[in-house]
Amino acid sequence: MPLLQPAPAFLCAAALLLSAAGAKYTPDWRSLDSRPLPRWYDEAKVGIFLHWGVFSVPAFGSEWFWWHWQGEKNPTYVSYMEKNFPPHFTYPDFAPQFHAQFFDPDEWAGLFAAAGAKYVVLTTKHHEGFTNWGSPNSWNWNSVDTGPHRDLVGDLGVAVRKRSIRYGVYNSLFEWFHPVYLSDKQNGFQTQEFPRDKLLPELRNLVMRYKPDLIWSDGDWEAPDSYWNSTEFLAWLYNDSPVKDVVVTNDRWGAGCACKHGGYYNCEDKYTPGVLPKHKWEKCTSVDTQSWGFRRNMRVHELMDLPAIVQDLVRTISFGGNYLLNVGPTPDGMIPPIFQERLLGLGSWLKVNGEAIYESTPCRVQEENGTVPVWYTCKDSSVYAVFLMKPPPSSSFSLPSPKTSASTVVTLLGNPAPLDWAPLHPAGLVVLLPDLPPSPGHGWTLKLDGAT
Amino acid sequence: MPLLQPAPAFLCAAALLLSAAGAKYTPDWRSLDSRPLPRWYDEAKVGIFLHWGVFSVPAFGSEWFWWHWQGEKNPTYVSYMEKNFPPHFTYPDFAPQFHAQFFDPDEWAGLFAAAGAKYVVLTTKHHEGFTNWGSPNSWNWNSVDTGPHRDLVGDLGVAVRKRSIRYGVYNSLFEWFHPVYLSDKQNGFQTQEFPRDKLLPELRNLVMRYKPDLIWSDGDWEAPDSYWNSTEFLAWLYNDSPVKDVVVTNDRWGAGCACKHGGYYNCEDKYTPGVLPKHKWEKCTSVDTQSWGFRRNMRVHELMDLPAIVQDLVRTISFGGNYLLNVGPTPDGMIPPIFQERLLGLGSWLKVNGEAIYESTPCRVQEENGTVPVWYTCKDSSVYAVFLMKPPPSSSFSLPSPKTSASTVVTLLGNPAPLDWAPLHPAGLVVLLPDLPPSPGHGWTLKLDGAT
Amino acid sequence: MPLLQPAPAFLCAAALLLSAAGAKYTPDWRSLDSRPLPRWYDEAKVGIFLHWGVFSVPAFGSEWFWWHWQGEKNPTYVSYMEKNFPPHFTYPDFAPQFHAQFFDPDEWAGLFAAAGAKYVVLTTKHHEGFTNWGSPNSWNWNSVDTGPHRDLVGDLGVAVRKRSIRYGVYNSLFEWFHPVYLSDKQNGFQTQEFPRDKLLPELRNLVMRYKPDLIWSDGDWEAPDSYWNSTEFLAWLYNDSPVKDVVVTNDRWGAGCACKHGGYYNCEDKYTPGVLPKHKWEKCTSVDTQSWGFRRNMRVHELMDLPAIVQDLVRTISFGGNYLLNVGPTPDGMIPPIFQERLLGLGSWLKVNGEAIYESTPCRVQEENGTVPVWYTCKDSSVYAVFLMKPPPSSSFSLPSPKTSASTVVTLLGNPAPLDWAPLHPAGLVVLLPDLPPSPGHGWTLKLDGAT
Amino acid sequence: MPLLQPAPAFLCAAALLLSAAGAKYTPDWRSLDSRPLPRWYDEAKVGIFLHWGVFSVPAFGSEWFWWHWQGEKNPTYVSYMEKNFPPHFTYPDFAPQFHAQFFDPDEWAGLFAAAGAKYVVLTTKHHEGFTNWGSPNSWNWNSVDTGPHRDLVGDLGVAVRKRSIRYGVYNSLFEWFHPVYLSDKQNGFQTQEFPRDKLLPELRNLVMRYKPDLIWSDGDWEAPDSYWNSTEFLAWLYNDSPVKDVVVTNDRWGAGCACKHGGYYNCEDKYTPGVLPKHKWEKCTSVDTQSWGFRRNMRVHELMDLPAIVQDLVRTISFGGNYLLNVGPTPDGMIPPIFQERLLGLGSWLKVNGEAIYESTPCRVQEENGTVPVWYTCKDSSVYAVFLMKPPPSSSFSLPSPKTSASTVVTLLGNPAPLDWAPLHPAGLVVLLPDLPPSPGHGWTLKLDGAT
Repeated sequence: MPLLQPAPAFLCAAALLLSAAGAKYTPDWRSLDSRPLPRWYDEAKVGIFLHWGVFSVPAFGSEWFWWHWQGEKNPTYVSYMEKNFPPHFTYPDFAPQFHAQFFDPDEWAGLFAAAGAKYVVLTTKHHEGFTNWGSPNSWNWNSVDTGPHRDLVGDLGVAVRKRSIRYGVYNSLFEWFHPVYLSDKQNGFQTQEFPRDKLLPELRNLVMRYKPDLIWSDGDWEAPDSYWNSTEFLAWLYNDSPVKDVVVTNDRWGAGCACKHGGYYNCEDKYTPGVLPKHKWEKCTSVDTQSWGFRRNMRVHELMDLPAIVQDLVRTISFGGNYLLNVGPTPDGMIPPIFQERLLGLGSWLKVNGEAIYESTPCRVQEENGTVPVWYTCKDSSVYAVFLMKPPPSSSFSLPSPKTSASTVVTLLGNPAPLDWAPLHPAGLVVLLPDLPPSPGHGWTLKLDGAT
Repeated sequence: MPLLQPAPAFLCAAALLLSAAGAKYTPDWRSLDSRPLPRWYDEAKVGIFLHWGVFSVPAFGSEWFWWHWQGEKNPTYVSYMEKNFPPHFTYPDFAPQFHAQFFDPDEWAGLFAAAGAKYVVLTTKHHEGFTNWGSPNSWNWNSVDTGPHRDLVGDLGVAVRKRSIRYGVYNSLFEWFHPVYLSDKQNGFQTQEFPRDKLLPELRNLVMRYKPDLIWSDGDWEAPDSYWNSTEFLAWLYNDSPVKDVVVTNDRWGAGCACKHGGYYNCEDKYTPGVLPKHKWEKCTSVDTQSWGFRRNMRVHELMDLPAIVQDLVRTISFGGNYLLNVGPTPDGMIPPIFQERLLGLGSWLKVNGEAIYESTPCRVQEENGTVPVWYTCKDSSVYAVFLMKPPPSSSFSLPSPKTSASTVVTLLGNPAPLDWAPLHPAGLVVLLPDLPPSPGHGWTLKLDGAT
Repeated sequence: MPLLQPAPAFLCAAALLLSAAGAKYTPDWRSLDSRPLPRWYDEAKVGIFLHWGVFSVPAFGSEWFWWHWQGEKNPTYVSYMEKNFPPHFTYPDFAPQFHAQFFDPDEWAGLFAAAGAKYVVLTTKHHEGFTNWGSPNSWNWNSVDTGPHRDLVGDLGVAVRKRSIRYGVYNSLFEWFHPVYLSDKQNGFQTQEFPRDKLLPELRNLVMRYKPDLIWSDGDWEAPDSYWNSTEFLAWLYNDSPVKDVVVTNDRWGAGCACKHGGYYNCEDKYTPGVLPKHKWEKCTSVDTQSWGFRRNMRVHELMDLPAIVQDLVRTISFGGNYLLNVGPTPDGMIPPIFQERLLGLGSWLKVNGEAIYESTPCRVQEENGTVPVWYTCKDSSVYAVFLMKPPPSSSFSLPSPKTSASTVVTLLGNPAPLDWAPLHPAGLVVLLPDLPPSPGHGWTLKLDGAT
Repeated sequence: MPLLQPAPAFLCAAALLLSAAGAKYTPDWRSLDSRPLPRWYDEAKVGIFLHWGVFSVPAFGSEWFWWHWQGEKNPTYVSYMEKNFPPHFTYPDFAPQFHAQFFDPDEWAGLFAAAGAKYVVLTTKHHEGFTNWGSPNSWNWNSVDTGPHRDLVGDLGVAVRKRSIRYGVYNSLFEWFHPVYLSDKQNGFQTQEFPRDKLLPELRNLVMRYKPDLIWSDGDWEAPDSYWNSTEFLAWLYNDSPVKDVVVTNDRWGAGCACKHGGYYNCEDKYTPGVLPKHKWEKCTSVDTQSWGFRRNMRVHELMDLPAIVQDLVRTISFGGNYLLNVGPTPDGMIPPIFQERLLGLGSWLKVNGEAIYESTPCRVQEENGTVPVWYTCKDSSVYAVFLMKPPPSSSFSLPSPKTSASTVVTLLGNPAPLDWAPLHPAGLVVLLPDLPPSPGHGWTLKLDGAT
């Protein structure tokens, strides 16, 4: 049995069904869940997540600022507002300060490309309901009517696609304080005015206008999918929308859907499975461990450093996931320098080690915890073994799982010279490591050509 | 033929039909127009109109500020904004400055009572779409979510009703810049998403919450009543609403309706008929001749002075109209002192001369233009002759039209002593005037008891 | 003894001394007080006072807003700020909202001319210290560096002088919160850094730049004139300044100076002497009885009406005073319409009755309280009797004091026809009044030519 | 001749004169320049420079924002303001947004301590004139009257001293737009009102209040020291001030003073001498290569990375300088995370290698440019050789200059084990390097005990 596992079932299915022309989905999960995941997504592996909205203006606590302040009346937030703002200041009063005056989508896209990202997901509408495009269903509460006076969704989309990066849109189903939503909620979701008059027209508008490669749904948990009319929407999306062949979605389409229905699975935020999942999944996580949105008062010790990011990425890929790494832009339209540095560091690391990441598949074994932990990925006839954070204590380094043959060639990515190695019994091999070059992410990859 | 005309047809009809219990109206003009006008309205005669909204903040030009600035791009407004505001300042950015911090509804109601007003009409939603109550259909664009953080419609209603003043709500059907309205408009009004999802739910919410005595409809002219669904709304209002027996409406319910369908007629703004109309009507006019909303830069010569107001009132009443006099409150919630003075002056005048106004009916003759012009009103067995602006040149004053008898008694309102008079041939009488007391409105009334 | 009193001593002195060329004053009160008052001032009689500054922005309570709020911590003001402003909002933060965008000095000057004013006094620096010109001693706290970005003092001066109106500058000696002043104060005024480095350089700058006809000094009461160096300043002003021959000052030059030293006397605000003062004086008073500065929340009943103003003016003139009537412009640069109306009403009254006011002198008798109170003024060989507020009850009207001769001619100002009259014994006369024309100020003047 | 140079003359002088009690300086450079530099300064080596002020609010371009915008009218700045602010917006209008709401001086001090800093210099007043303490000579233009409403200078001083860090105050002599300064300037600096009334009282206030260990003077170049009265001030500072024994100053005290008079020399910004200076000096430089103040739109590639900082530090120390590294806090009171990371990286490096830095003196040879450049520092009987940026290509590493003896011991800082070495002829040695541990700053230090 080879170390290199065959491509998991969900990918095979995808491959098969993509050729079945004219497939029509019915608005039920049995049918919708049968849709194969468009192949680009699994191959892409690395995405950038962007939380940007009016919450980037107060930039205090997290992107849940409004809710903490006025929903749960958390004393920290209440007192912060009392100390720093006029008594009648409201959350919408922040919107005019969302200037985005330095927003240069080409510069952003260049950064994301340099970070090695293959897709980018922007919050087009977070739980606050503010839309980052001129949605006709969100009058005076969108980025064209107020604040930036600019089509942020559109401008970023054009720029990232120029770099051949796929473009995804995050969309929150619920809106904390939308009165029509609150009225439906008070009716136990027996009325559906909000999905009918607001949510679905707006979401369709988003799809028709920007033709996203990915819809990252969120904010679904308060009501069942039958309230949101999710299956009808997805049937339309998969059958009739202009992105029907390419679009990818996740699994947040109603209470109980996560990890169960939809496209790939996000399960919960920062999901970290202990064993290889059977369904394609994605780990979304944030450089700022305290918030997805920009915070003015972040401290460097609250942020992931580059080695932590690289380890998280490698572990995620080895377990078959995609890695969607979040940064929060400022209200001025800048990616804070510390995030720039993290992304560029990730890109440097991927420049050397990306071969082990992109288009890889999980192997038979995902990780081994020897003195130095190792994670495996596979592609074609190669096995990649990545070790992280600390270099091996000596130059003789053992990998217990791979099966080698006489023709196996071992190299260190970034270094063309073949390395000396010897097989171990009953399995595995020992490799003679060269001097390791400095790695910004403290991670090095051994490539085993002709191993399994 | 008596000078005192019988009550005009529309009033008789009203009297007759009010007794017809259980009348049900169908949603067509033939049926709706047959509804008798509730009697209180014709008796009330004098109302106060209030234009208050976000437009009170820029308070420049008029309440059409937004349209002049961004709809027609009038250079005066464009340049004013360029000179005084940041480049990306939007109209909604004015809303947080609508503080209403001095708004004391009881003080306002006291002023309106002292002005002699029997009804008050507030702009609950002008063409800008901003609602002066927490309308669930106008999220973040209403006086509770932003600006005053207060239910202005409700608070004023309670206060004026404490003074036994009737309460009316102005409501604009169209909204200049509402994207859903603009979309319907672009579709040649063949779609009706705006009336269905926004206008009518909101208008019914307004009726149910505040139970208005009067709905002052406006902003109807761009589309036919069939677009607005006006007849359905009115049928509901007249048949099933909580105000079905008392509510009065006007005639702005769709292009072509004015002066033709609905309740009483406003026809056009500041309508001034030359002959006695056959249908109950109302003249709305504004102390500030340049604007209905507050203007920060008004000059006193642009305002009506008290004699002009009194003359306009008297003429309107003598021609069978109601008089709805407008003032624009400040964004701080004050009635500007110059308007206070006008309203109090009107009240002083009505205190002496109101007997000739309230509950009066038009006479056979409305006005006579002798050396000193005279207007007539009638009530019971009395004829009132009001002369204005300048006192008669001598103490012998002729009234050519009234028919007197031996028992006719002539007095000057405010002065109990009967005056000497003598009949003229073929008609009329000559009265010996006393010294005229000072009148703030330069108007004096002769009451002819037992004349016609 | 004639009713017409000879011109009072202070005026005679003025006349005499004006011819004494080359008079040099020493910096002591004996010398300075001997300076004759330039004649223009007594002849002018009627001035307009303008309180305009940063206090016009909060426009709450009065122009003492800052002091009430942060000096005495008056709960009304403290609570108003807490309810309506952010916690760290400071008084200087109001300055950027002092826009003056509608300020049209020519329009103002036209209004003051129409009001009959012969001089205008503007607060060039009130107790807040903010200067309405670009004072180099008040960096970033003046109308050129911030707020209006305009030389308000200069622009108004040019405009009023084009109308031949004299121009005066109000200047506060102390500044509530100036740290250098507070430091001198804490030293018991034994140090004089504030007058030396701030006050006097600034005041001389004001004089040199704008060449005022009048310096209306204020804010002197906390320290003696020796602290302010007032006598040195006045000696310079009278001897060497470019306005040495024309300038008029008042009496607020140090604790204890009021009603005792300086030019004319203001004594206290709204000073109303019961007997004819021996020294030229001025009554300053305000249309808004609650404030000198603009208040956003003024009510019309808190304002002087026109008859009250006319009576106050007439009484002041009959007792030898000048009348300086205050209005508070808005931060936008408008004279509120209610003030426009008062000023125009005053002007209308003066147009008819001004002959009894301008260039008049007090008579032997100032007032008589018969059924209808009367005030006297004198000029040349005429006596003027002004009666106010209510017309005489009958057409026979008695004046007990004037002495007539056979050639005495009596007229009503505004009416050329001589009136019938008859002498009374032992003194006075009875006049047969005509029908009185309407008077906006409820005041009528009888002119007695050839009486004393 | 030993590699270890004797302590340079200026330090000896210091040592000698410090014992001479009662030394009195006269206000001339000959006397003032003779004052020995207090010893703490040369021993400290590493300082943190902080540029914080109103310029941190626009945070665009650099801390010279005001000058670029309104002094030189640089089109980039003019256009930026036109596009983003109202027409009449002024620089002082930025001050209320200088909130400093997150400013935690203890946290800052902790960071500076962790960075290995021995002194901290804060801009207490930059060229804008805004003082970061409640200066009585800068009314309404200081951090207590407006913006933070807090004594920033005092609060930071207390915190850094709790960490045993010395506290220095940056003070600009000139103020770009102070009208009194501009007036002196227009007079060819023949008048001295600005130094007399503003600058010197304020500077003395600063010294008396905060007792700084260091005065970092700046903004001197437009006028000679005789205008600023610098020598008088310094004589007072050295003779009579409460910090006379401890205070250190630099050399910016008038045009022509830099690199010639005063305390230590800064010469020009980012001064980098090519040979060992004869006078104690300091290199000030900034992590952000484009600005000393915070910029909202900085890009990570415009910043120094940690290896560049370490190299710059090491070079500076080897040439006898102190290293003052600047970061710009945000208007909210945060050190941006990217700067936190740089400072913590520097601290980590110093934790291992600080022995070669603190209290060191220059050696006979400063640097050697072999394959791998090396910098030398000396202390007691040790020579330190620091190599940077890239590790030596092989494990045999030659140092050509040091003279060894049989008892010489060579170690790698951070690693107690003695290293093998051998002498070279005619001088120097070759060392057998161990595996180098990762260094965040890419710099390693060899310590040669018993070498010269």
